[in-house]
Amino acid sequence: MRNILIIGAGKSASSLIKYLLDKSEKEKLCITIGDISIEAAKKITTNHPKAKAIQLDVFEVNQRKKAVQKADIVISMLPARFHIEVAKDCIEFGKHLVTASYISPEMKALDADAKSNGLIFMNEIGLDPGIDHMSAMQVIDRIHKLGGKMLLFESFTGGLVAPESDTNLWNYKFTWNPRNVVLAGQGGAAEFIQEGKFKYIPYHRLFRRTEFLDVEGHGRFEAYANRNSLMYREIYGLKDILTLYRGTIRRVGFSRAWNMFVQLGMTDDSYKLQDSETMSYRDFVNLFLPYSPTDSVELKLRLSLKIEQDDLMWDKLVELDIFNPIKKIGIKNATPAEALQKILTDKWTLEPMDKDMIVMYHKFGYELNGVRKQIDSNMVIKGDDQTFTSMAKTVGLPVAIATLKILNGEINTPGVQLPIKKEVYEPILKELKDYGIIFKEHELPYIGYNPNNVIS
Amino acid sequence: MRNILIIGAGKSASSLIKYLLDKSEKEKLCITIGDISIEAAKKITTNHPKAKAIQLDVFEVNQRKKAVQKADIVISMLPARFHIEVAKDCIEFGKHLVTASYISPEMKALDADAKSNGLIFMNEIGLDPGIDHMSAMQVIDRIHKLGGKMLLFESFTGGLVAPESDTNLWNYKFTWNPRNVVLAGQGGAAEFIQEGKFKYIPYHRLFRRTEFLDVEGHGRFEAYANRNSLMYREIYGLKDILTLYRGTIRRVGFSRAWNMFVQLGMTDDSYKLQDSETMSYRDFVNLFLPYSPTDSVELKLRLSLKIEQDDLMWDKLVELDIFNPIKKIGIKNATPAEALQKILTDKWTLEPMDKDMIVMYHKFGYELNGVRKQIDSNMVIKGDDQTFTSMAKTVGLPVAIATLKILNGEINTPGVQLPIKKEVYEPILKELKDYGIIFKEHELPYIGYNPNNVIS
Repeated sequence: MRNILIIGAGKSASSLIKYLLDKSEKEKLCITIGDISIEAAKKITTNHPKAKAIQLDVFEVNQRKKAVQKADIVISMLPARFHIEVAKDCIEFGKHLVTASYISPEMKALDADAKSNGLIFMNEIGLDPGIDHMSAMQVIDRIHKLGGKMLLFESFTGGLVAPESDTNLWNYKFTWNPRNVVLAGQGGAAEFIQEGKFKYIPYHRLFRRTEFLDVEGHGRFEAYANRNSLMYREIYGLKDILTLYRGTIRRVGFSRAWNMFVQLGMTDDSYKLQDSETMSYRDFVNLFLPYSPTDSVELKLRLSLKIEQDDLMWDKLVELDIFNPIKKIGIKNATPAEALQKILTDKWTLEPMDKDMIVMYHKFGYELNGVRKQIDSNMVIKGDDQTFTSMAKTVGLPVAIATLKILNGEINTPGVQLPIKKEVYEPILKELKDYGIIFKEHELPYIGYNPNNVIS
Repeated sequence: MRNILIIGAGKSASSLIKYLLDKSEKEKLCITIGDISIEAAKKITTNHPKAKAIQLDVFEVNQRKKAVQKADIVISMLPARFHIEVAKDCIEFGKHLVTASYISPEMKALDADAKSNGLIFMNEIGLDPGIDHMSAMQVIDRIHKLGGKMLLFESFTGGLVAPESDTNLWNYKFTWNPRNVVLAGQGGAAEFIQEGKFKYIPYHRLFRRTEFLDVEGHGRFEAYANRNSLMYREIYGLKDILTLYRGTIRRVGFSRAWNMFVQLGMTDDSYKLQDSETMSYRDFVNLFLPYSPTDSVELKLRLSLKIEQDDLMWDKLVELDIFNPIKKIGIKNATPAEALQKILTDKWTLEPMDKDMIVMYHKFGYELNGVRKQIDSNMVIKGDDQTFTSMAKTVGLPVAIATLKILNGEINTPGVQLPIKKEVYEPILKELKDYGIIFKEHELPYIGYNPNNVIS
């Protein structure tokens, strides 16, 4: 029997655990699920004979070390900042580690120790980061192998609501952490490179510089820029690439409407509001508008954002009931972002039968034998229900598959790493297809931003 | 003889030193000017027999302590963060201290020590903070003494170029630290209260929510909100006031034009640009605009900011030569804000004969015997030349006057303080009149924001 310790029984663990339990008989696996809440851990084991739930507080050193010691491999599904203590235990007791989080500098620093102990610390192997790396590197490596030169790489991911559950004017519901959605894009200008020119978009213009993406059978989407695309030049070995851009996918019209909140200042998380607990939604809106003894909040907002009579933007605001004078924010010392999140959560929470959807879209521009070409690749997957969401599948399945392949010695290069090597991404992407995570490729003439090489 | 130690021989020390030297005979004063640059210290003494220049590095403990020990009172004109070591020396050796800076928490913490040693640590006694406190408190105290109830307090200050030296379309030149001008308003939403309603303006809208101020004989100005007005409720004893707003004065049209830089993202100081040293002004502008193989930077900017053909905003940009493809930023690892400052400094630096101007404007709304009234009070002063600028006068003279009054025992309440008590502001404001710092008051009916008490 091989013992797998999974720390964290949160939302994204369902598909991960199901995958491993389904293979537990054949692969001789014993799964221990540790969570700070023993109830959460028990619930997710579904009373499976090969699963054991334990209470595990990651800050209880002895408890944590004991659990790690018993395992053959450890999966940490904790928030990223909690991985490092687990990782140090894995070094101490000689255990492999798998996480779906970005490699932190502290994690990176364990690389030499991991290598000298023959340990595989696989990170960034969820959806984004994870499937994005693997599906991108598969095409990039293929182009390079053919002798092609990469000109452009653009990559977009979005967690959305499935069309059959899409019941509001925003075409959006919270399918993941709402706070991350409200704060998206903050903390510095978005930085990328287009046709060899560095470009910067400040936060307050981010949602007005979107681009469109058409996905066959799924219609049109839009994307706004992620903060830092430039680091992918190094990670993906694309140092001289002319265009590199990563973005977040939404349904068309979302970003222009979201920009209303940005413009008003409602997404600010840097200061606390006075009297936020007893403040009505209407009062909240009025905070960001000039005082008037006579004009309504509605009129002031229309004027302030220049929203015309027949603009759907207006209906989007009304749908959120944001002008309600009775409903209260109900949070003490809330920041504007926290208050906005409260208002949005009223309307954007998934109903019990709602399904989510993940969309990923890559563009690869390259030159091969003097000809400029482009490959577009996209993946769309929907959730089955609110347990096996598309988010849980796309985050959990690559983690699960990688874990088993490490256990079975199929992935065997030690060190702190992310899944950009062929030995890793090839078998994992192949197996993901069985679970509906399938990339469709289209070859087209190179489009880019300057196909005719015009000089201004 | 009484010994006065002035630390810091910068721009704002000229009027301060002249005032004290002019009185040195009559008042038996010996002035020591210490600066990290002995040349700067020597230059500002103008070879006056009662002045002595010394080299003083505030981080050389022994040197600093020795200088403080010899003085009867110390004036620190250093940047605010350097006062605290001087202040501790003043406690140790029993010396009074005067600064023109905001009271830091560290300075505040010395209050008990100052009091128990009978020492006066007078701070915030320059222009803003300084003359603003004194001139506001004089009227507020008068209104309160009459039995009036304060309804509204608005206060505005601006450092500008004098009309006779106003030679550009922006009606602005740098008369003080350019960096502060470029970064003005950043670091959080502007917070204030209007007719009992809290209001917040995010940075990216700050320069579009200005108000106008008319000053008899000087024309019209505009003002944008300062970041934190609310703390003045406590400082000025205006806890229940309905309207409290502080702002910065510019000539009309400046803010709308400045907003172009804010919108583009050029005032961001949070990240460094790639290749900023060799970047042309034109390249810099292009960083913030979408890529196009054909369209010019000019056209992209016009479209991006929706600047029409006949809009003066455009001429303001052209005047700055911001589209120049030859001129280089010439600063390694510059932030956008640093690059913008470079471009502006080319055009907004004072010419040798240019004069500066300070404008301050207060509005006091109050109710007295059931009648709502308003007092508007304003002060305008111009510089004589580039030594005795209006900034040097308005910052340095209150410091100088307070210093002498402390020495002479006319100001005698010990502790860490700012000039909001009548015993302090009354004699100082009186003497400032002799130097042209004169407030003109106008009584008018209460205007406020809701004069007819309409409820929406």
